[in-house]
Amino acid sequence: MSQIERVAIVGGNHGNELTGVYLVKKFQQYPNLINRGSFETLALLGNLKAIEEGKRYIEKDLNRCFTNQSLQNTQLSSYEDTRAKEIQQILQPQNLPFVDVIIDLHSTTANMGLSLIFCDMHPFLLRLGAYLTSINPMVKIFINQQSREGGFLRSLCELGFVIEVGAVAQNILNAELFQQTEQLMYAILDYFEGCNQGNIPQSNSTITFYQYIETIDYPRSDAYDGLHLHGEIQAMIHPQLQFRDYEPLHPGDPMFLTFAGKDIFYEGASTVYPVFINEAAYYEKGIAMYLSQKHQEVV
Amino acid sequence: MSQIERVAIVGGNHGNELTGVYLVKKFQQYPNLINRGSFETLALLGNLKAIEEGKRYIEKDLNRCFTNQSLQNTQLSSYEDTRAKEIQQILQPQNLPFVDVIIDLHSTTANMGLSLIFCDMHPFLLRLGAYLTSINPMVKIFINQQSREGGFLRSLCELGFVIEVGAVAQNILNAELFQQTEQLMYAILDYFEGCNQGNIPQSNSTITFYQYIETIDYPRSDAYDGLHLHGEIQAMIHPQLQFRDYEPLHPGDPMFLTFAGKDIFYEGASTVYPVFINEAAYYEKGIAMYLSQKHQEVV
Repeated sequence: MSQIERVAIVGGNHGNELTGVYLVKKFQQYPNLINRGSFETLALLGNLKAIEEGKRYIEKDLNRCFTNQSLQNTQLSSYEDTRAKEIQQILQPQNLPFVDVIIDLHSTTANMGLSLIFCDMHPFLLRLGAYLTSINPMVKIFINQQSREGGFLRSLCELGFVIEVGAVAQNILNAELFQQTEQLMYAILDYFEGCNQGNIPQSNSTITFYQYIETIDYPRSDAYDGLHLHGEIQAMIHPQLQFRDYEPLHPGDPMFLTFAGKDIFYEGASTVYPVFINEAAYYEKGIAMYLSQKHQEVV
Repeated sequence: MSQIERVAIVGGNHGNELTGVYLVKKFQQYPNLINRGSFETLALLGNLKAIEEGKRYIEKDLNRCFTNQSLQNTQLSSYEDTRAKEIQQILQPQNLPFVDVIIDLHSTTANMGLSLIFCDMHPFLLRLGAYLTSINPMVKIFINQQSREGGFLRSLCELGFVIEVGAVAQNILNAELFQQTEQLMYAILDYFEGCNQGNIPQSNSTITFYQYIETIDYPRSDAYDGLHLHGEIQAMIHPQLQFRDYEPLHPGDPMFLTFAGKDIFYEGASTVYPVFINEAAYYEKGIAMYLSQKHQEVV
């Protein structure tokens, strides 16, 4: 592994996720908090207009605009397409290589604790995950391999990953989660510093992680009604599943509750681990939760 | 007390508060759930466009548009001003008196449980509150007398009140709170039915309620910065106060935590009871919480 020379921390890729927004503002005000002897750290805000307006995005989800195709297409003129190109340039100023690491700070209404989301099983990231989960049980590792082609900011570099913090409502700050996220950031930066100095922090030799299997939508009305892209929802997350991210869901366990009060059960063949349960921004995307499998691996 | 003949239940006065939106949709689909022998119940959605777009409002807060002055001003053309006039007409169709009761369903990111918010100490509402708090400890009564002139929907009739349900994030459904709100609605309608039939449900003879004293804003940067109406926030709700709505706050208790990690304490002279702590929609209004006094009264 070569040295890490430049790290980018991005907050407010979604404008209504305030934990990252205010952490980045703090880091911009006190850069000594995030710089380390062996590398430089850049803190930047993502969707500036959406942050001002307290929205996830203005015209389209910025965190789906980072495909190669979009970044090279000079015809795209939405605010988010333009901002995506600006961010790409900030991450790779002229005469400099692209940043080595992108840490993309998000928050979620799902009870994700402090989740690191990786695009793949990169050995460096797995060792980082093993270390962080060993020092803080709130840290969880979710691996979503489908996401390389999705236009996510994190996919711009090999060591790009997301931190998802929750449960917290959109457009509010939860001080406890803010402080926990801040401490996690320092632990990550200190880990990089140790690696650069040939002094990798001690850790568990195994990592527990959760790997994406499939997306579950809400039960919806059959027909496209002209208004709801995915049809109108007919049920809610079941009270017994709400806030139970990363806990086992067994065949036959309740999953949804219809507005009429009827339970809907999980009909899969084996135990799975739901994550992103009841994320506010995913209703419009047709996602009630992701199902994952739990794995342990030696790193 | 004369008979209650017509009751209106409004959901989605704010478009991103889904508990009320989906309860009203359920009531519209199954009107027998809300009709009673002695009165008629109307269920209607408030801010239709904002519900479609998953926002609190489109141009301005609909729940500040119901002043007499605005309702009579034909020059006002914003979506919300227009919708306010439509709602007023729905609540008073030609040749009929105005509805006797308005129940305005809201949700909040504050931990308000099932809060009833009254504009004044109307004896009928206080007896209703005494009854509901006696059958369900989640029910709380908050009296905000400043609110008559605020253009609130509930102020259109003497027996208008708000139900605030939380903590729940904007743009999600929490099934447990949905069901608790639904049961509360039936208890209220059954209470009205009993009153109409001269058979008022038995209750405690005292009511505990919380009366508005003052509004507390977040600590903010001094100067208006051209962007933030109230200056940029400098601190978060303190972790020891978060989710502690209706609990005592004593002089010297921590209230806020600055981004730099410094505690800010409550400096009032006497114990108060904060409510609406960390409501997402109130950041832009300059409200971190309301302070209230706790009272008991014989009804």
